[in-house]
Amino acid sequence: MGRFGIPGAALLSFERADDIEYNRGDMSVETFEFTVQSQGYCHLEDITGRVQDCLDRSALLDGIACVAVTGSTAAISTMEYEPGLLKDIPEMLEKLLPGDRSYHHDETWHDGNGFSHLRSFLIKTSHTVPFAGKKLMLGTWQQLVVADFDNRSRSRRIVVQLVGD
Amino acid sequence: MGRFGIPGAALLSFERADDIEYNRGDMSVETFEFTVQSQGYCHLEDITGRVQDCLDRSALLDGIACVAVTGSTAAISTMEYEPGLLKDIPEMLEKLLPGDRSYHHDETWHDGNGFSHLRSFLIKTSHTVPFAGKKLMLGTWQQLVVADFDNRSRSRRIVVQLVGD
Amino acid sequence: MGRFGIPGAALLSFERADDIEYNRGDMSVETFEFTVQSQGYCHLEDITGRVQDCLDRSALLDGIACVAVTGSTAAISTMEYEPGLLKDIPEMLEKLLPGDRSYHHDETWHDGNGFSHLRSFLIKTSHTVPFAGKKLMLGTWQQLVVADFDNRSRSRRIVVQLVGD
Repeated sequence: MGRFGIPGAALLSFERADDIEYNRGDMSVETFEFTVQSQGYCHLEDITGRVQDCLDRSALLDGIACVAVTGSTAAISTMEYEPGLLKDIPEMLEKLLPGDRSYHHDETWHDGNGFSHLRSFLIKTSHTVPFAGKKLMLGTWQQLVVADFDNRSRSRRIVVQLVGD
Repeated sequence: MGRFGIPGAALLSFERADDIEYNRGDMSVETFEFTVQSQGYCHLEDITGRVQDCLDRSALLDGIACVAVTGSTAAISTMEYEPGLLKDIPEMLEKLLPGDRSYHHDETWHDGNGFSHLRSFLIKTSHTVPFAGKKLMLGTWQQLVVADFDNRSRSRRIVVQLVGD
Repeated sequence: MGRFGIPGAALLSFERADDIEYNRGDMSVETFEFTVQSQGYCHLEDITGRVQDCLDRSALLDGIACVAVTGSTAAISTMEYEPGLLKDIPEMLEKLLPGDRSYHHDETWHDGNGFSHLRSFLIKTSHTVPFAGKKLMLGTWQQLVVADFDNRSRSRRIVVQLVGD
């Protein structure tokens, strides 16, 4: 039994057993989903706690969280979730991409939400956040939010795709 | 031969062999590229089918697709790809970041496309989409698009980096 | 000692040892951080070289780099880093989201940086770039930048989360 014999294999296996618990080779993807009830009209909902919950329930320590809202009239971003900005952000978007202007989109569907599509195209429907030691790497006053730009209440499906080890 | 002897190693190895085929530990990265012929001037091209093709040709089931356009005068986002919005988005960008204004960028290169750089900085050149069960997790009326803001026709290189298992 | 006995385990282990060096199953996450001293007021800093340094120091060849700034008054994007655009981008943001307007955010904290929060919400705090063969897949004239929108100098923490093999 030399160094490339069976004891070698055993040794190798135990090295790799360590890998399983502490090291690379233990990467995986974990998919989580939840629903946010939104009132539309630039509704901003803090989803940081729910995304952190997904991470807590996963087996992952370090990696990235891709947070996505399905649909084309909403977006994911981050903000300091405080009452002032909850007014400022809708007011800013109303100035840049007014809801009371007529858009070609409405000629197609007559649902009056062309502006919400433009906002979603601009701010985009996913945002990726690194995590380490099972914690989202965000600033102290930085929250993950879903922004619903539609002109009616919606049930929004949020996908949290965790990739890491 | 105790529980930490050779039989333990064998057992461990077979557990890990299962991992290879069905489970985590089978993560990988697959890189795809394709070219889009664009006419510039806020050309919007639906690339959902081509990104899904990359995913179909990969060995991956679950993960994330990072879709990126190389260059600094284009962007990747999602939209409902219908004729109304194909007019609304260029009109919106023309209002926010007009093409007929003079920009300092043109003092450097005299190529008259300062506005296209600003649009690319704002909307950004990559977008990440989760996938599960070999399907991109997008809404029913949500398409992945490359937006080419340059002031001439271009051949655009799109990179699709798939990370998953 | 049959094919499922100890020799089989040894064989399997050595196959997997190859995997470690050349093949999938060798995925990992590597976390890097660095600090950027910023002057605020739409300070744009080219961080491409430092992100590439992280990649060089990692064991990874192919994957994605999620580059994030912690906080809610800054953003990560890409641009052609040349003197003209270094004036155009602050001028554009001053037009779209003026710094001299009063925002509700200032009623909460009286720190006068409401506009910087709006810019961060819009452009967003992370950007994901694919890499292959140990090189970031960016265009020739495309640089990764941190944009600091705050109204004072800051020490900015940049996280580079590399996921790949």
